[in-house]
Amino acid sequence: MSNALYFVGLDLGGTTMKAGVVDDNGQKLSTETLPTEPEKGQEHGLERMCETIRLAIERASLRLDQVATIGVATPGTMDIPAGMILDPPNLKPWRNVPVRQYVQDKFKVPTAFQNDANAAAYGEFWIGAGKEVHSMVLFTLGTGVGGGIIVGDLVLEGEHSHGAELGHMKIEMTNPRQCGCGRWGCLEAYASATAVVKRTHDALAGYSGRSSLNDLLHKQQDITAKDIFDAAAAGDALAERIVEETAYYLAIAAMNMMHTIDPNMVVFGGGMIAAGESFLERIRWHVKRLAFPVPAAKTQIRYASLGSDAGFIGAAACGRLLYKKSRK
Amino acid sequence: MSNALYFVGLDLGGTTMKAGVVDDNGQKLSTETLPTEPEKGQEHGLERMCETIRLAIERASLRLDQVATIGVATPGTMDIPAGMILDPPNLKPWRNVPVRQYVQDKFKVPTAFQNDANAAAYGEFWIGAGKEVHSMVLFTLGTGVGGGIIVGDLVLEGEHSHGAELGHMKIEMTNPRQCGCGRWGCLEAYASATAVVKRTHDALAGYSGRSSLNDLLHKQQDITAKDIFDAAAAGDALAERIVEETAYYLAIAAMNMMHTIDPNMVVFGGGMIAAGESFLERIRWHVKRLAFPVPAAKTQIRYASLGSDAGFIGAAACGRLLYKKSRK
Repeated sequence: MSNALYFVGLDLGGTTMKAGVVDDNGQKLSTETLPTEPEKGQEHGLERMCETIRLAIERASLRLDQVATIGVATPGTMDIPAGMILDPPNLKPWRNVPVRQYVQDKFKVPTAFQNDANAAAYGEFWIGAGKEVHSMVLFTLGTGVGGGIIVGDLVLEGEHSHGAELGHMKIEMTNPRQCGCGRWGCLEAYASATAVVKRTHDALAGYSGRSSLNDLLHKQQDITAKDIFDAAAAGDALAERIVEETAYYLAIAAMNMMHTIDPNMVVFGGGMIAAGESFLERIRWHVKRLAFPVPAAKTQIRYASLGSDAGFIGAAACGRLLYKKSRK
Repeated sequence: MSNALYFVGLDLGGTTMKAGVVDDNGQKLSTETLPTEPEKGQEHGLERMCETIRLAIERASLRLDQVATIGVATPGTMDIPAGMILDPPNLKPWRNVPVRQYVQDKFKVPTAFQNDANAAAYGEFWIGAGKEVHSMVLFTLGTGVGGGIIVGDLVLEGEHSHGAELGHMKIEMTNPRQCGCGRWGCLEAYASATAVVKRTHDALAGYSGRSSLNDLLHKQQDITAKDIFDAAAAGDALAERIVEETAYYLAIAAMNMMHTIDPNMVVFGGGMIAAGESFLERIRWHVKRLAFPVPAAKTQIRYASLGSDAGFIGAAACGRLLYKKSRK
């Protein structure tokens, strides 16, 4: 027991942060979640991160000297090699926050830093959906579309910390939707949960038929991606069309990665995968039609399996990678 | 001299094959080009490859025992780890050709095998446009659009030998052009030399203005991408529009790689780069408008510098990589 290895991961989000301890097999010993409250400023945020990490270690009944490394995953924009958050849209008003250095100085434990979607991908790769494969591309479907690309033990973070910004590949030129990032025709403008809702509103506006979503909209003022997937499952024609098109857009995204990275597996994660197996089957169906025959036949298309733990587990895995490299 | 390292590369194309010898610094000692004549069958082709390699070694005044490794690059489809060409559209009627094994058995020298565009990318990365950078994406613009992705010493060949098939990322859904591969909306359908000609024919068909390309078409029955770039340079309005749109398409391709791989450098190679510096400037201009600010500011956009030598030099470099790995 005394020689066992323990790794702490922290996944920082705009609303909450989650820390946890895992062992060398990725077995989870503890988790701890606290609110982020970015509006209270970055000093407060850094303190809160350390507090969450401390509580996770305590909850795992470990002493700090039993922790081999810490890993921290955060949203961007960022400078990954420098361990810094730069100007994060979801953590306003933070700016130029030296996250890795702060955490490392506080705990005196080697600390890794990674983009949250990259970390989630690496978590899924380590012990989740991709644990048997050599390479994997993850799309996270939530408010936006995030991405992570893993090839072997390489997290493709890019030279300017913009690797795997898969939500911002352009898939439409003629009649592009505008993305939250201001650009036009980005995948995210079609396939995020936000985009699904927006496309549904647009479709309802020009719809002469009857849709249960109209009733819902009157009742609850707004609809969610979940409402739309539920309505499709219940047979609502407009909702079915939206869901079908979403599967098509995600299949294009998968294909573009299959013709670029050509991984063993494409994984979809994030809130939207609550849509269930039938949605995944639709994506697979389109992928088979769209992609080159060999990758179409051989590339596994799966849902993520770690749920909201992927981020902190992946962050811990990035710390573990740091540890393994230091032992070489 | 006796301890110097020499590497032979062979670049197999549908029309000709080119072999050459380079030293450990990529310095070229010899080249030899012979016609491929695929219609004479694959046995003939394999013999011809060995003959070309033999002549290149002879021309470099080397003995076979002075050659450390051989590298062979070919068009696809292929199984790279198996060293086999499977069903290559440009080498009909070849099928399931065990290229690497054949060459290795013939010369008793360790032999590497790679996709031709991947090899060209690795050649440019080793001693060409990308020689100072850590990662690079190459687009080759010719009859089709090929691609190669290099990150560190990793050639991203993919799990099913479909890595970096960058001509077949989909960039248009609403009004897609059909690609030579049968799919719709592929980059290649917009930005290959073939596509530039095709788009010009389509544009001329619906054009009420006067274009010098119409006169040219009457005179020589057909026009080439070079004719179109020349006409644009001479001020022909329709040709200018075609060239401008081509730059835009290539900028989208570059951006999609900058938001996926996020390399230090995006390189354009192949016959179309004869269009010159002003065309590259147009691509850069669009990239700056399209991509995220940090990669837009920092990613170098360049032309390839090795010309038609990139393939055999890259093939030799793949052999060299094999050699370096064997010495670890």
